[in-house]
Amino acid sequence: MRALVTGVAGFIGSHVADGLLRQGWDVMGIDDLSGGTMVNVPKDAKFINRDVGLDLDDLMAEFQPKVVYHLAAYAAEGLSHHIPVFNYQNNIVATANVLASAYRHGAKHFVFTSSIAAYGHPRKSNSDAGGPQRERLTEDDVCSPCDPYGIAKLACEHHIQAFFDYYGGPTYTIIRPHNVFGPKQNVSDPYRNVVGIFIRQAISGQPMTIFGDGQQTRSFSYIDSVAQCIAASGWTEAAKNQTFNVGGDEPMSVIELAKRVCETVGVDENIQHLAPRQEVLHAHADHKKAHQLFPEIHRSPVSIQAGLKATVQHVTENEIPTPTHCPSAIEIKDKLPPLWRDGA
Amino acid sequence: MRALVTGVAGFIGSHVADGLLRQGWDVMGIDDLSGGTMVNVPKDAKFINRDVGLDLDDLMAEFQPKVVYHLAAYAAEGLSHHIPVFNYQNNIVATANVLASAYRHGAKHFVFTSSIAAYGHPRKSNSDAGGPQRERLTEDDVCSPCDPYGIAKLACEHHIQAFFDYYGGPTYTIIRPHNVFGPKQNVSDPYRNVVGIFIRQAISGQPMTIFGDGQQTRSFSYIDSVAQCIAASGWTEAAKNQTFNVGGDEPMSVIELAKRVCETVGVDENIQHLAPRQEVLHAHADHKKAHQLFPEIHRSPVSIQAGLKATVQHVTENEIPTPTHCPSAIEIKDKLPPLWRDGA
Ligand SMILES: NC(=O)c1ccc[n+]([C@@H]2O[C@H](COP(=O)([O-])OP(=O)(O)OC[C@H]3O[C@@H](n4cnc5c(N)ncnc54)[C@H](O)[C@@H]3O)[C@@H](O)[C@H]2O)c1
Ligand SMILES: NC(=O)c1ccc[n+]([C@@H]2O[C@H](COP(=O)([O-])OP(=O)(O)OC[C@H]3O[C@@H](n4cnc5c(N)ncnc54)[C@H](O)[C@@H]3O)[C@@H](O)[C@H]2O)c1
Repeated sequence: MRALVTGVAGFIGSHVADGLLRQGWDVMGIDDLSGGTMVNVPKDAKFINRDVGLDLDDLMAEFQPKVVYHLAAYAAEGLSHHIPVFNYQNNIVATANVLASAYRHGAKHFVFTSSIAAYGHPRKSNSDAGGPQRERLTEDDVCSPCDPYGIAKLACEHHIQAFFDYYGGPTYTIIRPHNVFGPKQNVSDPYRNVVGIFIRQAISGQPMTIFGDGQQTRSFSYIDSVAQCIAASGWTEAAKNQTFNVGGDEPMSVIELAKRVCETVGVDENIQHLAPRQEVLHAHADHKKAHQLFPEIHRSPVSIQAGLKATVQHVTENEIPTPTHCPSAIEIKDKLPPLWRDGA
Repeated sequence: MRALVTGVAGFIGSHVADGLLRQGWDVMGIDDLSGGTMVNVPKDAKFINRDVGLDLDDLMAEFQPKVVYHLAAYAAEGLSHHIPVFNYQNNIVATANVLASAYRHGAKHFVFTSSIAAYGHPRKSNSDAGGPQRERLTEDDVCSPCDPYGIAKLACEHHIQAFFDYYGGPTYTIIRPHNVFGPKQNVSDPYRNVVGIFIRQAISGQPMTIFGDGQQTRSFSYIDSVAQCIAASGWTEAAKNQTFNVGGDEPMSVIELAKRVCETVGVDENIQHLAPRQEVLHAHADHKKAHQLFPEIHRSPVSIQAGLKATVQHVTENEIPTPTHCPSAIEIKDKLPPLWRDGA
C-alpha cells in the first residue's frame, strides 16, 4: 500500500508515518519545513520538500498514493486571529488543493486531521446561546468555531464531505484531536502547545508563562494512541466516512500542568502570569466513538504523567531546534500578546 | 458618509452602490471585472479595477471608508465543485483580506452578502439526518453547506463574527440572499442564475435548458428590495451584528419560470431537458427577520411577473455583453455538465 503523508516533518505527521512504515506501507512525505524539521522525518519515507498549496500533480502522478493523510497545516490557533489571510490560504485553500490532486490521481481514501477547535463555542442546537462548556464535546454537537484556525478546520471538514458526496470518492476519515503532546513535538514554537512551551521554559530555567490564572482546563493527549488511530484510519473499514474525536480523558488545569512539568524536569516552580487571552475556558471531548472504532488502540492510553516523562526525556536527549518563526508576516497587530511580538 | 463597495461592477453591487449614492453617500467601488462590467458601475462612484485578494491598504488608507459592503465573489455555485481551489481563494481568502484591511483603516461596519447556499442541506439539529427540505429556512437552522461556494460563505460568516468578538469591531451585517434577478444581471454567464440564462436563450431563439425535470422550486427574488436591504444595513441600527435571509416569498418551479420567461419575451415554449445535476431540490427562506428589521422595504416586494418584465425590457434595450468565461481553469473535469464544457 502506498500512502502520502503531508506535514511529515511535523510532530503528529512523523508519528503517523512511523506507524504506516511499521505496517509495511510505502510512504511518501511532503513538508515545506515551515514548522517541522528534517530530524522528524522517518528515514524509510521518501521525502519531498514542497508547500502543499502548490501544484502536486507531478508527485501524485508518480507515486499514485492509495491513501492520503493530510496533516500539513499552520496550527497556531491563538495566533490565527492575527494572520487570517495566511491561515485560510495555508489551511483551507491548500487542503482543497491536496484533495483535488489526490482525486485526480486515483486516491481511494483521505484522512484529515481536523481539530477540537472546529467546535469553538459548541451548542447543543442553533438556538442554544452557547457559553462556557458544561459537557464533553460529542461529534453530534453543532460546531461554532470562534477563531480562524477552527473556522478553516470546519470548512475543510465540510469540503471533504461535500467532495465525497459529489464525486463519490475518495472516502474519508476526519479526526478531531486535541492538545496532543509527546516526543518530537516542536518545543521551540512560541505560539502553541503549552506542554512544549512549559518544557522548554523549565529546561532553560525561564519562568513558565501562563495566560490568565491558569484555571483553564484541557485533557492533554499523549501522542501514542492519537497517531495510531490516525494511521489505522487508512485500513479500518468502520472508520470510513466517519468524523470523531481522539485524545486523552484526563482533565488538567494549565497551572497543574505547569507544576507537573516542573516536577518531571526537576526544577522549582517558577510561574509568571500574563494577561488572559480570549480562549475557550474548558475544552474536553467525549471519546466513545473512537473507543468503538479502535477498541484495541484506545483501551489503555498512556497517562499524562508517563507521557510527560517520555517527552522530557526526548527533549533532553536531543538538540532543541532553533525557534520556528511564524511563516507569515503578522497581518493585524492589535491585541497581539506582548510575548508573541518578538517571535513574529 | 464614505462607503466602499466591492463587486460594484456586478449585478447586486451596482444596485447597492446606486442606493448609497441616492442617500448622498460617497462611494468607492472595487471590481476586477472578472464577472462584472463597467456598464454597471454608477458614474458617480469612484471606481478602482483591482482583485480584492490583493493588497488594498493604499485604497483603504486614501478613502477611509466608514462602511464596507463586501459583495465581490465568484458566485457560480454549481461550478464551484469543479474549481474548489479558486473558489476558496476568491471567496474566503479574499474576504479575510478585505476585512483585515478595512479594520486596519478604521472601518466601523462591514456588510457581507452570504447566501442561502450557506444552509446547504439544513437540519433542525445536528442529530437530524437532513434530507429534502420540509420547511422554510430560518436563521436558527443549523448550516450544513454542501458545495464549495456555500462552504466558503459559511466560513466567511464565522470569520466575520469571530473577528468582531476578538477585536471588538467592525460591527457587521450578514445577509443571505437567494435567487436574485433583475436589470443589470449578467445574462451571458452560462454557469449561474437561471432567470438570466432563460432570458438570453428566449431572446436569441435557443431552446431553454433545464437540469432534470424542472420540478425543483425556488423563490426568485427581484433585485429591488434585496439591494435596498443590503444598502440600508449600513445605517440601520437594528441590523448591527445580525444575520438574516432576504428575498422573495413566491415559490416557483424552474419549468414554470421557463414558461413565464417565454410569455414575457413573447416566444413559443422550447424547452430542452438535460441530465439532472446534484442540487438542493427545494430551497425557500423565511423572511420574518428581514420584515422586522426593514419593515418599510420588505412590505410590498415586486412580483416575479413584474420583475421579469422589467428585466426583459432592460435586456432588450441594452447590448448583451459578451459571455463571461470562468476566471479559473477547471480543476476537476469529472461530472462537469456537458453544457459547461465549452464555456470553461
Ligand atoms: N498538536 C495538536 O495538539 C493538534 C490538535 C488538533 C489538530 N492538530 C492538527 O494535526 C496536524 C499536525 O499538527 P502537529 O501538531 O503535528 O503540527 P506541526 O506544526 O508539528 O506539523 C505540521 C507540519 O506541516 C508542515 N506544513 C505546514 N504548512 C505546510 C504547507 N503549506 N506545505 C507543506 N507543509 C506544511 C509544517 O512544516 C509541519 O512540519 C495539523 O493539521 C494540526 O492542525 C494538531
Ligand atoms: N445573485 C444572487 O442570486 C445571489 C444570491 C446569494 C448571494 N449572492 C452574493 O451576492 C454577491 C453579488 O452577487 P451578484 O449576483 O451581483 O454577482 P456578480 O457576478 O454579478 O457580481 C460579483 C462581482 O464581483 C466581482 N469580483 C469577483 N471576484 C472578484 C475579485 N477577486 N476582486 C474584485 N472583484 C471581484 C465580479 O467581477 C463581479 O462584478 C456575491 O457575493 C454573491 O455570492 C448573490
